[in-house]
Amino acid sequence: MNCSIITIGTELLIGQVLDTNSVWLGKSLADIGVQIVSKISVSDDRADLLKAFQRAEEDAELILITGGLGPTKDDITKQVLAEYFGVDLYFDEGQYERIKAFFQQLNRSITDAHRQQCYFPSNVELLENNMGTAAGMLFRHHNKRFISMPGVPYEMKYIMEHSVLPLLAQESEKSIVHKTILTAGVGETVLAKKIEDIEDQLPPHLSLAYLPGLGRVRVRISGASENEAALKKEIDDISDKIVDRFGHYVFGFDEDSLAKKVGRQLMDKGYMLGLAESCTGGSVAKLITSVPGSSKYFQGSVVSYSYDLKESLLQVQKDTLLNTGAVSEETVLEMVRGAIKLLNVDVAVSISGIAGPGGGTPDKPVGTVWLCVGDKDKQFTKKLSLSKDREKNVEYSSNAALNMLRLFLDEKLLDD
Amino acid sequence: MNCSIITIGTELLIGQVLDTNSVWLGKSLADIGVQIVSKISVSDDRADLLKAFQRAEEDAELILITGGLGPTKDDITKQVLAEYFGVDLYFDEGQYERIKAFFQQLNRSITDAHRQQCYFPSNVELLENNMGTAAGMLFRHHNKRFISMPGVPYEMKYIMEHSVLPLLAQESEKSIVHKTILTAGVGETVLAKKIEDIEDQLPPHLSLAYLPGLGRVRVRISGASENEAALKKEIDDISDKIVDRFGHYVFGFDEDSLAKKVGRQLMDKGYMLGLAESCTGGSVAKLITSVPGSSKYFQGSVVSYSYDLKESLLQVQKDTLLNTGAVSEETVLEMVRGAIKLLNVDVAVSISGIAGPGGGTPDKPVGTVWLCVGDKDKQFTKKLSLSKDREKNVEYSSNAALNMLRLFLDEKLLDD
Repeated sequence: MNCSIITIGTELLIGQVLDTNSVWLGKSLADIGVQIVSKISVSDDRADLLKAFQRAEEDAELILITGGLGPTKDDITKQVLAEYFGVDLYFDEGQYERIKAFFQQLNRSITDAHRQQCYFPSNVELLENNMGTAAGMLFRHHNKRFISMPGVPYEMKYIMEHSVLPLLAQESEKSIVHKTILTAGVGETVLAKKIEDIEDQLPPHLSLAYLPGLGRVRVRISGASENEAALKKEIDDISDKIVDRFGHYVFGFDEDSLAKKVGRQLMDKGYMLGLAESCTGGSVAKLITSVPGSSKYFQGSVVSYSYDLKESLLQVQKDTLLNTGAVSEETVLEMVRGAIKLLNVDVAVSISGIAGPGGGTPDKPVGTVWLCVGDKDKQFTKKLSLSKDREKNVEYSSNAALNMLRLFLDEKLLDD
Repeated sequence: MNCSIITIGTELLIGQVLDTNSVWLGKSLADIGVQIVSKISVSDDRADLLKAFQRAEEDAELILITGGLGPTKDDITKQVLAEYFGVDLYFDEGQYERIKAFFQQLNRSITDAHRQQCYFPSNVELLENNMGTAAGMLFRHHNKRFISMPGVPYEMKYIMEHSVLPLLAQESEKSIVHKTILTAGVGETVLAKKIEDIEDQLPPHLSLAYLPGLGRVRVRISGASENEAALKKEIDDISDKIVDRFGHYVFGFDEDSLAKKVGRQLMDKGYMLGLAESCTGGSVAKLITSVPGSSKYFQGSVVSYSYDLKESLLQVQKDTLLNTGAVSEETVLEMVRGAIKLLNVDVAVSISGIAGPGGGTPDKPVGTVWLCVGDKDKQFTKKLSLSKDREKNVEYSSNAALNMLRLFLDEKLLDD
């Protein structure tokens, strides 16, 4: 089965909203073998919506629509869908009762705007939304199916998980299999060179793609077949060959992350981790704690944004700060040693750098970052020379710090 | 002038990449009055690309394309563009010399794959890319313009900023003006109710849209006119009326953020800020330090993920932790008082909660979060009852903490 996604909202076109919905939709549909042929964003405009519905109907059997179902006047999806299908709107008493109960539970009273949310095109099949006031809608039209959902991420996810995905999983025939090899600390072209011959010999029903990120590259193998088990085995075999070539650059597969990987390593060794962050400003701690259960191996972090805290909490020597500066190999070494004592942990990571856009000097331009990882016996340092872009520098340094911790815990740091 | 955006890459459809490019493109184009009529993502597939080019040419005068220009075999944009325009590819010696020099500077040698990047459709006008190996490309075709750029965000931005935006800004006639009012601590329907009459009386060339987020709602006023100055004044007048109704829920406009707002407040008062984060795990520190220059008012943060650090660093009493638990009003109060002393700051914020998915109890279900903000004389606390979703809880709590700090610094906290 193939699918087109339509996301509705002027905010998606003028750059006010980062479209995370279609990422989640893409993943969920790929997992059950639904192929997405296109994804289109349009504004809350009648003519644009009608054209988008028409084209999506030409392209795909299934059309998933998000957005434009809210209680405010700019939300016109339902009216335009009714026009497209040539039907009227009707008032659904059942939905009205549900919304009234929903608001009673929150101790809020229902407004006229919410009453508007109980009108639906008459050919609708309603899909339950327990997370909000706008119900999901399924329409059958010219042997195609249109599914319209709210743009609020957790409401859309609820409807997908409870109604749409179970329905589609039942119907799927051909399987699509993706496997993604996750690497860190190396560039796309170096990796491509290592597996040039493997790529050249790929059978035509398989494909390879490189997805570069800041300090990470993902390499995806994809294929389609009626025999899912055989396809999985074939892709696993090729993946094994590639992983062998890539060596310790590989840290995981698919939905894994550097934060999850170091979490498992720390659990295995029974280590507690502590952080001393300066220029990354809490970003590494945020990555570590994005993993549920991270309190089992993460003690905490000192975000020492000032000279003062580096001295008073992390015991970096005044002389070190005066002689070599806060962004130096000596400072990050002392930060790790200080963090191990202060936080009472087995292993610590420190980062100090000039994220930018200001603060650079000829000696230490913006983008200069020092990293250190170690335990009480042994510490390793590394210097990065990055860009002038603050956000990019923070993200790259955070990934590099986690990758350095990964290699340290694998005792591979000297090989790098 | 109107524009269609095409983003190319299977990774955009199967949910492997969050499309931040089109957010940036949308903003930049809206700012110079270019109206985006649609945004479409397609996979690296010849037939899908040809169809996307055709439809975009029907819809708009300007077609912006990102992605598929890399050195790997899945990158086919140039070949398909040449086919669409009915021209051949040629080898550009100038680009080859440029790429060789680029690699020499990085002390790396050039590969065959990079040689491939020097082939271009013969009707190309090259656009300089100083950030990478794939040049930008401009094509004039049937009185329309196609511009193709790499998908790597900083390469795309370089080409836009140095070639495309200056070109378009020169040509623009009708101005589009957006103004967005930023609010925190209140829901979309409450806001809509407050300005129902203003919305009903809006002239037809203006429109209003609500963009809800976690703990924040943005309200956007948009309009188009040949007289930019008059339009700006008209929108400013309506904005003033709305701001008056919304009162202290409003914290800023357009690209402002809670983190920037509290930064300005702290600078004005000459205060240093410290944080004591538990369940948000560094997320508030990351928001604060995302603002360039934040070191002037941000001393640092203790991310006390464990009981131990709450006691040893923040001086939360053992009795408090035993009797009321780490997620309690007493604990966040002691965390703020402890942080003020430990970090030697004027004002501090603390957060402790159960982010989930595990760790809930009947008394304190997942989503229970306590916040505290204060100085050495006065502290305020607040309890949130959030969802079961870890990521959402962290984001909501972080925004709520910043909003509480904002109201405290404005001495408005008691009014809330």
